[in-house]
Parts: sequence; C-alpha cells; structure tokens
Amino acid sequence: MTLPATMACVGGGVIGSAWAARFVLNGVDVTIADPSPDAERIAHEVLANAVRAWDLLGLPTDTSVRGDLSVTDSIAAAVADADHVQESVPERLTLKQKVLAEIEASARPDAVIASSTSGFRPSVLQADLLHPERLVVGHPFNPVYLLPLVEVVGGRATDADVVERARAHYRAAGMKPLHVRVEIDAFIADRLLEAVWREGLWLVADGVATTSEIDDAIRYGFGLRWAQMGMFETYRVAGGEAGMRHFIAQFGEALSWPWTKLTDVPELTDELIDTIAEQSDAQSGRHSIRELEQIRDANLAAILLALEHNRWGAGQTLADQRAAVAGPHGLPTPR
Amino acid sequence: MTLPATMACVGGGVIGSAWAARFVLNGVDVTIADPSPDAERIAHEVLANAVRAWDLLGLPTDTSVRGDLSVTDSIAAAVADADHVQESVPERLTLKQKVLAEIEASARPDAVIASSTSGFRPSVLQADLLHPERLVVGHPFNPVYLLPLVEVVGGRATDADVVERARAHYRAAGMKPLHVRVEIDAFIADRLLEAVWREGLWLVADGVATTSEIDDAIRYGFGLRWAQMGMFETYRVAGGEAGMRHFIAQFGEALSWPWTKLTDVPELTDELIDTIAEQSDAQSGRHSIRELEQIRDANLAAILLALEHNRWGAGQTLADQRAAVAGPHGLPTPR
Repeated sequence: MTLPATMACVGGGVIGSAWAARFVLNGVDVTIADPSPDAERIAHEVLANAVRAWDLLGLPTDTSVRGDLSVTDSIAAAVADADHVQESVPERLTLKQKVLAEIEASARPDAVIASSTSGFRPSVLQADLLHPERLVVGHPFNPVYLLPLVEVVGGRATDADVVERARAHYRAAGMKPLHVRVEIDAFIADRLLEAVWREGLWLVADGVATTSEIDDAIRYGFGLRWAQMGMFETYRVAGGEAGMRHFIAQFGEALSWPWTKLTDVPELTDELIDTIAEQSDAQSGRHSIRELEQIRDANLAAILLALEHNRWGAGQTLADQRAAVAGPHGLPTPR
Repeated sequence: MTLPATMACVGGGVIGSAWAARFVLNGVDVTIADPSPDAERIAHEVLANAVRAWDLLGLPTDTSVRGDLSVTDSIAAAVADADHVQESVPERLTLKQKVLAEIEASARPDAVIASSTSGFRPSVLQADLLHPERLVVGHPFNPVYLLPLVEVVGGRATDADVVERARAHYRAAGMKPLHVRVEIDAFIADRLLEAVWREGLWLVADGVATTSEIDDAIRYGFGLRWAQMGMFETYRVAGGEAGMRHFIAQFGEALSWPWTKLTDVPELTDELIDTIAEQSDAQSGRHSIRELEQIRDANLAAILLALEHNRWGAGQTLADQRAAVAGPHGLPTPR
C-alpha cells in the first residue's frame, strides 16, 4: 500500500468533501481547509453518504478503520503536515493559482500537490509557482468516493516522480488513475462530456427534446453500454464479423452527413437557462438533492458489484480494492 | 399485451437479427428477409446470444415460449402476413427507399412499417411511398435484445395511430419507446453519440490518447453514471445544494473556454482509420467478436438486474417486462 499518511483537501465543496471521504474510509487522516461556515456540516454529510455507499459495497466503514476527519479555515494549517494536498476550489484560474501559491508556501517539500481542475492545464496552473515540480492534476469524477476514474496529468515542469506518486496514492485508495500523457485543455473525459453538453443544449434550445427525454435517450440506451465498454470497444463489437476497420469506414461517412454541421457553440441565454432549470425541476424535482444522491449512489454501488461479479472494468478495480483491504482472511463480496 | 402476432425483419445483419431474437423470445413468429447466404447462420447465432442473455436475466427462453424464426430471401414473402415490418438494411438512403417501396408493395394495408435507421428522417424515407402513413422510424440500440431504448419518430405523412401502435409493439416486447416529437436528422441519441465520436476521433488523430485510454475515460467514470441517470439529472445532483440554475450558469461558462472551439469535423483519412484499427486490435484483439459480445451481454444483464433490484430506470423496464411474462404465479428475480 502506498496511501499517503496524511492528506489535506483544500476546498470542501461537493468534490473536496468526497475526496476526503474516500481517503478517510481508506484509513487516512484528512484535514479539509475551507472558509465556509457550512464546510464542517457538508464534510460530514458527504462522509455519511460515502459510508452508506461503502456499506452497500460490503467494504469496511466502521470507525476503527477510518482516518480522522477535521475541518479548518486555514490552508497553512491543513497542508503543513500532508503527504498529499488535493486542491478542489471553484474553477476560476486566478483563484486556483492564488490558492496553489498559498498551498506551496506551507506544504512539505516532498508533498504531492494535486489539483482537481476539470479543464486547466497543469502547465498553466504551475506557471507562477516557486516549486512547480510538485504540482500535478488529479481530476476526479463525482461521486469521488464511488467512481474509480481520476485523470492524472503532469505539466511541463512537473516531476515524473510526482506523477507516479499521485497515481500510487489514488490506486491505493481504490481508484483507477488514467495517465493523460499529452497535456490538453479539459483532458480526455471532459472533452467528451463537453461535446455532449453542447449537443444537449442545442436539443433543448431548439425545442427538440426536454432534459428528461435527453436523459432517457442516454440511460436506457448507450449509457448502459458505456458503464462497461467504452465507445471504441462497443463499436468494435457492433461492427460484428466485418471488423473495426469496416465499421469505422462505414460509420465515418456519417461525419459528412448534414447533422454533423451542427457544431456551433450554442449561446447560453437566460431564457435557455430558465428552460433547462424548469425542465429539470419537472424531471427530478420530486426528489431532494440528498435523495437523488442516495438513489445515484445505490445504483452505482449495485452496478459496481454487478461488474465485480463479472471481474470487468470498474468491477475489477473494486475487486482489487476489496482484496487489498481484506487482508489474509478475505472479505466476502455481497450479492 | 399488444405484441404483433407476426413480424418481418427486412435485413438480417447485427441489428435485424437482434430485433428478430427479441420478438421470438416474446413468443412472436418472425421471418427475416435477407439475400445473404450467411443470414440463416447469423440469425441463429444472434438468437443463441439472446437466449444466453435472457437466461442470465431469469426470463423464460425455453422453446415452448418462443415464436418461430424463419429466414427467406424474399421480402414479399416475409412481409405478406406481418403485423409489424422492421427494416434494418444498411444506412444508405437510396437502398432504404428502394427496400421500403418493395415492403409496402406486399405488406398488409394495416401493417406498421418501421425503419431502424439511425439518422434519416422518416419524412425523407416516406417521400416516395404510395402509403407513407404506415412508415415510422423505430431506431434501436445494439444489442437490441437487451437494451430497452427505441427512438420512435413519425414523419410528416405518418399516421398518429401508426406511431402509437409501433410504441405499443415495442413496449410489449420489453422496450422503452422514446417518442422523438420533433423530427430531426439523427434524432436524439445519435446526435449525442455523433458529438462524442467527433471528439474521440480528434483525440486519436491528435495523438492525445489511444482508443483504449478514451474507453477507460468513459467506462471508469461518466459511463457508470449514465447507466442510471442521464447528463442533466447527473448535473442537477452534482450542483448540490446550490441547485440546477446555479450549476448551469457556472458550467455554461465553459462553453466560451478555449477547448470548445474544437468543434470542426475531423477528416477520416486512411491513416486515421489505420491508427484506430491498430489501437483497437491492441485493446480488444485478444477476444474474438463473439467473445466480446458475450462479455458485453453478461455485463449488461448484470447491470440491468442490479438496477431492477433498485427499481430504477432500465431496471424498472425489466421489472415491468418480468411482471408481464410472469402471469399470476410470478417469476423470481435472480440475484
């Protein structure tokens, strides 16, 4: 195991608190730095969600295996003793740069400083740091305590060893670090997500479909496929006996069909925001956000267990984690 | 139940054969029309896959509940007696129009004629038909015998009653018909899929990531989310206590960030096709297509069962289907 002995989460919102929960449940002492008066409450609510989800997974959650969770408003105090600092403040470049400078001023020389940014390149984030070699991107996916993916991206000045240590920390916490070898804005997953977001906004803006209909088009169809095989492997299979090359050449033709010209960026007017918010209320408003989180987590836990039984994809990652925490006596997989 | 008494599948490839398998397992007599000498073999191989998958779902598959499956090279013979004709020939407009004209010449006046097209608008497909009112799009998702989604789209000349009957047929066969109310090229799901495909091709073409890395970015992260909630509901939850409006306004800003300018359509050169085919071989080549199909189907069955236990999304559709086939004595859900 190569878990950090202590961790600091700078920024205690939805993402930061979920980072903290994942590592606390792995036995790591975590300090959250966040100036908000709600930070303590949010941290413990998210931890409670994580405990509920891990109970469904059959992973140990009792207090004897947990690390300590504390919350402070001082970045300096939180990071002073941390092996791994995870920055998850709002997605504004100047704010992130300011916070990262504050972190490096108090962090240990050998600390890994990781940013949860979903889009800024690490070379940009580290440009004004005194010790840019410690800075790496570790971009997670909500809910961080359940989804295994974390995109790990080094910048021009990042030490190769820091990239490796970040990956080891994440892997030891039960995650699937994906090394993004070429540094681009938005990395890999958010490039794909951004494309779907653009297209979804067009469909709503043009009055073609509601948010609920678009979501159904995802979760009753290709969303089920993508929980286990990605786009390219799915198409390989769909190509059947004729093979991948044939499939691409055939499907590729669609790139010159009329609808592929719809690549403009839609304007996010107040009217469109209103439409989406109203449709979303109609779709999901009968559940509170907390209820939706718990529905989501119960579904994700069930899907992860289903894939674990098949030893495939994210289920294999969970099986590896279970083996790691099981020790010599093993740990049963719940059915 | 409003299953068709008899069905014709015109085109017996991966899609057409899987349509046939779904309806045969629902007790419907199906005739496939396909001139290929491989059609008979493919139809029975796909049916065998479907039986394996339904066995995993705990749905009845024994021969006593199945309809008859036959294969002919004559469209006229296949469609003459069919309540529902499902056209699934290759995605070339002139071919589809020619085949649909052949179908309507022999189909019963009251037959539903549905096209599996993934992109052509029904108004275009029906333009030259003598009885365009019978033509509707019923766009399914591979594997058709497992994934519940079917996009149902009427054209300008389509009878409203035909749309309703097509939806009823699909629903009775255990599917989730999504009525696409506004007719656009590529409908809803393939608009989204096309956007991801474009972006994925850029990532490969630019050497940023391999097909395997892109697939991992999907299946260890947002793909898991999308098996149960779509994009908008996911973001609603991610927005947390601040709510959907706040989330959209914040995330929407990303639309004006640099990476959203990457909306050009990549050129599908021979070199890019070679790169993708080679990367796909490296990723999945250790499994045959048949093996990959069975891995995929076992995963999808397990995910559907997991969601059925939570009575959510595609799992609720499966629960409804189980209740429908169970009769008064019920049918146990496997664990």
